[in-house]
Amino acid sequence: MATYAEYIAQLQNGTKKVYSLEGEVPVRDALDIRRAYIEAETACSLVHVGAYTIPVDEVALKNCENMIGTIQVPLGVAGPLVVNGEYAEGSFWLPLATTEGALVASVNRGCSAITKAGGADVRIFADAMTRAPVFSTHSISHAKEVYDWILNHKQEVADVAESTTRFGKLQGIHVVTVGTSVYARFSFFTGDAMGMNMATIASEKACELISKETGAKLVSLSGNFCTDKKPAAVTSIMGRGKTVSAGVHLKHADIESIFKTNAVSLLDVHIRKNFAGSARAHSLGFNAHAANIVCAMFIALGQDPAHVVEGSLCITTIEPTDDGVYAAVTLPALPVGTIGGGTRVATQQDCLSLLGVNGEGDVPGAHAKKLAEIIAAGVLAGELSLLGAQAAQHLARAHQTLGR
Amino acid sequence: MATYAEYIAQLQNGTKKVYSLEGEVPVRDALDIRRAYIEAETACSLVHVGAYTIPVDEVALKNCENMIGTIQVPLGVAGPLVVNGEYAEGSFWLPLATTEGALVASVNRGCSAITKAGGADVRIFADAMTRAPVFSTHSISHAKEVYDWILNHKQEVADVAESTTRFGKLQGIHVVTVGTSVYARFSFFTGDAMGMNMATIASEKACELISKETGAKLVSLSGNFCTDKKPAAVTSIMGRGKTVSAGVHLKHADIESIFKTNAVSLLDVHIRKNFAGSARAHSLGFNAHAANIVCAMFIALGQDPAHVVEGSLCITTIEPTDDGVYAAVTLPALPVGTIGGGTRVATQQDCLSLLGVNGEGDVPGAHAKKLAEIIAAGVLAGELSLLGAQAAQHLARAHQTLGR
Amino acid sequence: MATYAEYIAQLQNGTKKVYSLEGEVPVRDALDIRRAYIEAETACSLVHVGAYTIPVDEVALKNCENMIGTIQVPLGVAGPLVVNGEYAEGSFWLPLATTEGALVASVNRGCSAITKAGGADVRIFADAMTRAPVFSTHSISHAKEVYDWILNHKQEVADVAESTTRFGKLQGIHVVTVGTSVYARFSFFTGDAMGMNMATIASEKACELISKETGAKLVSLSGNFCTDKKPAAVTSIMGRGKTVSAGVHLKHADIESIFKTNAVSLLDVHIRKNFAGSARAHSLGFNAHAANIVCAMFIALGQDPAHVVEGSLCITTIEPTDDGVYAAVTLPALPVGTIGGGTRVATQQDCLSLLGVNGEGDVPGAHAKKLAEIIAAGVLAGELSLLGAQAAQHLARAHQTLGR
Amino acid sequence: MATYAEYIAQLQNGTKKVYSLEGEVPVRDALDIRRAYIEAETACSLVHVGAYTIPVDEVALKNCENMIGTIQVPLGVAGPLVVNGEYAEGSFWLPLATTEGALVASVNRGCSAITKAGGADVRIFADAMTRAPVFSTHSISHAKEVYDWILNHKQEVADVAESTTRFGKLQGIHVVTVGTSVYARFSFFTGDAMGMNMATIASEKACELISKETGAKLVSLSGNFCTDKKPAAVTSIMGRGKTVSAGVHLKHADIESIFKTNAVSLLDVHIRKNFAGSARAHSLGFNAHAANIVCAMFIALGQDPAHVVEGSLCITTIEPTDDGVYAAVTLPALPVGTIGGGTRVATQQDCLSLLGVNGEGDVPGAHAKKLAEIIAAGVLAGELSLLGAQAAQHLARAHQTLGR
Repeated sequence: MATYAEYIAQLQNGTKKVYSLEGEVPVRDALDIRRAYIEAETACSLVHVGAYTIPVDEVALKNCENMIGTIQVPLGVAGPLVVNGEYAEGSFWLPLATTEGALVASVNRGCSAITKAGGADVRIFADAMTRAPVFSTHSISHAKEVYDWILNHKQEVADVAESTTRFGKLQGIHVVTVGTSVYARFSFFTGDAMGMNMATIASEKACELISKETGAKLVSLSGNFCTDKKPAAVTSIMGRGKTVSAGVHLKHADIESIFKTNAVSLLDVHIRKNFAGSARAHSLGFNAHAANIVCAMFIALGQDPAHVVEGSLCITTIEPTDDGVYAAVTLPALPVGTIGGGTRVATQQDCLSLLGVNGEGDVPGAHAKKLAEIIAAGVLAGELSLLGAQAAQHLARAHQTLGR
Repeated sequence: MATYAEYIAQLQNGTKKVYSLEGEVPVRDALDIRRAYIEAETACSLVHVGAYTIPVDEVALKNCENMIGTIQVPLGVAGPLVVNGEYAEGSFWLPLATTEGALVASVNRGCSAITKAGGADVRIFADAMTRAPVFSTHSISHAKEVYDWILNHKQEVADVAESTTRFGKLQGIHVVTVGTSVYARFSFFTGDAMGMNMATIASEKACELISKETGAKLVSLSGNFCTDKKPAAVTSIMGRGKTVSAGVHLKHADIESIFKTNAVSLLDVHIRKNFAGSARAHSLGFNAHAANIVCAMFIALGQDPAHVVEGSLCITTIEPTDDGVYAAVTLPALPVGTIGGGTRVATQQDCLSLLGVNGEGDVPGAHAKKLAEIIAAGVLAGELSLLGAQAAQHLARAHQTLGR
Repeated sequence: MATYAEYIAQLQNGTKKVYSLEGEVPVRDALDIRRAYIEAETACSLVHVGAYTIPVDEVALKNCENMIGTIQVPLGVAGPLVVNGEYAEGSFWLPLATTEGALVASVNRGCSAITKAGGADVRIFADAMTRAPVFSTHSISHAKEVYDWILNHKQEVADVAESTTRFGKLQGIHVVTVGTSVYARFSFFTGDAMGMNMATIASEKACELISKETGAKLVSLSGNFCTDKKPAAVTSIMGRGKTVSAGVHLKHADIESIFKTNAVSLLDVHIRKNFAGSARAHSLGFNAHAANIVCAMFIALGQDPAHVVEGSLCITTIEPTDDGVYAAVTLPALPVGTIGGGTRVATQQDCLSLLGVNGEGDVPGAHAKKLAEIIAAGVLAGELSLLGAQAAQHLARAHQTLGR
Repeated sequence: MATYAEYIAQLQNGTKKVYSLEGEVPVRDALDIRRAYIEAETACSLVHVGAYTIPVDEVALKNCENMIGTIQVPLGVAGPLVVNGEYAEGSFWLPLATTEGALVASVNRGCSAITKAGGADVRIFADAMTRAPVFSTHSISHAKEVYDWILNHKQEVADVAESTTRFGKLQGIHVVTVGTSVYARFSFFTGDAMGMNMATIASEKACELISKETGAKLVSLSGNFCTDKKPAAVTSIMGRGKTVSAGVHLKHADIESIFKTNAVSLLDVHIRKNFAGSARAHSLGFNAHAANIVCAMFIALGQDPAHVVEGSLCITTIEPTDDGVYAAVTLPALPVGTIGGGTRVATQQDCLSLLGVNGEGDVPGAHAKKLAEIIAAGVLAGELSLLGAQAAQHLARAHQTLGR
């Protein structure tokens, strides 16, 4: 092996490519050489970035090209949170990776309220990862032929799609057209994997069959009717990843003792903010800050944090009951998995273990579903706490006004 | 100081609170004790999480409560990328923190194309952080009085709002109503800070004045007409944070050599996917994967990654020109800052330095704007690369078809 | 029968109700008395309103309470328009009831272009009227039970629903939840009727069964997830009424002779307006003025003009071809029928006859589908003409600019 | 003048154009000849269409080309409705042109409730017709120059725009870009005219100036960021035509006597349907059936019924009060006028007179505003009645359930 200086010189004079180092030197050396090269190029110090402690041999090859080190994101815990799901049953400490001061504390307070109330009632309503290739056709009548062919040959399409995967299952195909473009939105059960790759590979095979049989040309494996990492109504209306809700019954006394407010104020904040305000803003999300909790848990747990876009579609509801309120969050689209992707990084594995969901579940999908249930309960905790805080200020101001 | 075991016992028997440790022991000890307690509670190992290397004294107090360590996110670089902005001028290496294999490589390829074409043409169109409190009134006519009062007293409102901040400036107020609810959407210039806190504090003062003068009751400092971390049309239509576009002129030869496709295929993919597909999906984002780049750069650079929701509103455009295409991305809402929040974490500071934007700029706001311009150029690189890849497959399949 | 003056006096002193007249006097007298009463109350002349010529005996009882006469809407014709559909095949004159100057002329020009090109290629992709009742449940787990029950008992639900109708068929149920609210979106084939009433009555029966079996409380027969007469993504994504597309291949020579522009200008207007402009405006419709044609034809043909909301969801596409362009319109939701509602008014029947679709078709649904195909072709004509006009101005201005 | 038969023969052999008749024979003859020609072409009877009674000399030239008669739409009245607006003060009978059975009766019941409660509290919050041309530029930096130029020359732009109109005033310009496309959304005060034509003509002049000064090319006078007759968030967020709200305080006793339900049921229906259901459907409208009332009144009053798309953006709210509920409707965009367009048709003028708004107001705009206030109150009546009916069924079913 040449010296670091020699490699750096080669990178500088262009005889070696920045991305080619892993093929020539041990991975940690590749990172060090590359980082040193970037430091030289930019006259910057990257000392903290370089002080990583995780094993990188696999990560540098599978998770991140041109790797030079790691970013360290502060990790806090909130809990214990009692979750009464079908997969998650018991008490959990939620890992949250964030730099937003007060977020962990806020979620923590929500966990107290939920746990005191006996736990969050959580259910998964649907579980499917989607991919929607787009085909071009030469006319409306050709588009109709393709549309009909797909809907009339679902089993053949499923057979070829499923031939690419060990346990993936094609659950449904929703076909729409826009002019001469035909979009086939495939929904797959993907076990404990988040499933984007599985869905893409399976879709590609399905597309080959469709093209061959219909003469439609595949334009792109993703036609944005999926919809991945864009805030889209189709995702909310039809689901993507896990569709999950969490709810809890809070009594008047607990609303007052924990949140320093009352049901009337809480409902007023909820309606004017989550519903009326979101309506006039034409938001696809009707919640207080679901994205914050989804994002912090996704980073901690090795999920794809760009999927916080899907998470932000959450609808929060609070309704009056005889002795308090019933509060709930509904997440139409929570794409999560416990194998593959970021779940193989060591610090993230610590957090998955903390929730008992590292790797595959006994039953395919059980770990991913358990994870989704816990995250939904965490979102409920975060929503209650922020809405409670806003309502408490509201109440305080109302008292002030009355005191005058 | 008691022994770790003693503290853990106190946490276990409830005589000490999990969040109270920082007040009693040095910060690093607090993290270690808390982590050990959680490990004991959950029978998990958190050894990797605990092997952090960043200074945590300030971080544990300001950025993350109940801290137990850090999550390490792999960091790669893409570049060099030539940016021709008003604030960012020159060549940059983009830091991307991600676990999504192929993302860095993809952005890297886009950087090559843009740099070969002479760089990305980038401009910021608007710069304002927003906050929209909601007030309740007792009737439509009262709502109209409040509406009128605010619009007729913008200067008084600005004066009290700006009294809370060193350099924040109230740029505008957009007032709407929904029944008896009145929403005042305040837009602030916030210098090099992302500005959410500044905007919230300033808005609170403004609200006090409005309530006092009109009798409207402040219900919540955030009425979701802001809209923070929810995918909302108001954010796209009126902007939030930086509104920024980046474009580049690609010649036919470069499209072919770098992306292995041609302009016709690239345009076909773009229209059927970004426009027609997004339209039928009713997406608020019309792009390929802008969220991926925004998210990876936000984590690397200490930005709030939950703001990837705003970033996902990107509209990508590709249009034919005489000798190739002009491709562009328009990000209506990119909330970024170079001081405060996650920018104080050591690894993130390394990355800010890499782009020459750590801390305040010479002119207030110059660093934050430079950062926004670079991120926009990075998004353009990512969009070109993914669309190019999809078009190349399209072209390849077209060739196969023709070859038969 | 008392004199008109006596009746009017009774209405004035409140001993008779304005809406009760039809029960006491012949219908035409009821209208005259009521109109005279309103004239007296308001000191207005309603002479033109009263000069109606249609038979009103049935109309006043079934279509409009408190009737006092009619509004006369100018009716023009555009055509002939050649339509190559599955149900509509041949040449048609389109009836358009409108007061917007230039609209008929514009559609007429579009008809010329389409007819010269050999006609519009039209296909219906889906045909289902929807109704989505909302139920309340007492918790998330109860909501899940209800959700599961419905999806596991589709046949029973279909049986009771279809027991209320002669030929209505339940095609599908899409169930979603928001917190404790459960929405079951029923899709019905409704033959030649637009089908809202049929769907509502059938849904009511289905709801009784669901409530009985699950304990869910029916809150409203329409839970706005249908969605009727509100511009909703669910309607566009999943269809409502007829989902129909019409397309046409225009050659360069015809674009130039008929629209005085060229393909490049037409494409430029289309992309920047229909796609990019609509995207930034966050419109659910991506077209030039589809609502105009839908509205004018709906009024002429006895359809419910409030359904123009659904019609406005149209997506227009124009793509380059080797020798011109292929232009198309995709209407995700066109609720039309040829029996019931406004189709029984005499002037509207004239227009239905003009298209050969008055009353039930030989095969149930054939008339309604034929009508949908013709309207879609009409929308295509209108889109082409307006976009052509805008492109022609664009071209003219470009020439001016070049001429300087 | 030749005989009808001779004209028809000329139309048939193509020596005369269908649209050219008005130039050669008296208008009524033109209609008769054209209608007879169409009857012959299609072997249809158009006798009812031809039995119109309105004067058509002006209408056939200004409102509808190729006119052959009229469509008669049944007209009913609802009322009296007490309106407490700034322009409409007093008691009104609402004209509704509809074929939807039960609609007039339903609105009528809502009028009773409002009138009994003392009338609807109505206010107009904004009044501006919009038009947003789209320009093309050659790069992002050029787009920024154009953007800056417009915002820095608002007065010059206003001067040339206003030079085209007697009383139109440019109120504001909102500029956004998408890649190289620049959209300037002009807002005009347009007096008693609905104002689309005025806004378009004034915008054209403004565009000429902008093009000349910046080199931007005008692509289309309407760039869909206006947005006309498409359901767009920009219209709701920023207003178009009149932005108007109407509210009323209903007491428990009246809810029970008039609507046969109670406040709790009414609120439950409202929240689960108008808010939660619309949210999950991703509707831009949050109401029960506002489009129905807007549509029926628009047809009766000579408004453009395709603008029901804008009307459907209504947000309905119901909130609990100490002694009942406060119900309101907020219509962000109600484009109405009392001069021009369909207001010149005789039957429509009858209805405008009925409300005292025919022609120009004493103060420019007063009649159009009065009309908007009355329509808003009518929408409130319609919303209350339908929600009340749904709640009553809900209550009835609840009683049944309890009775078992």
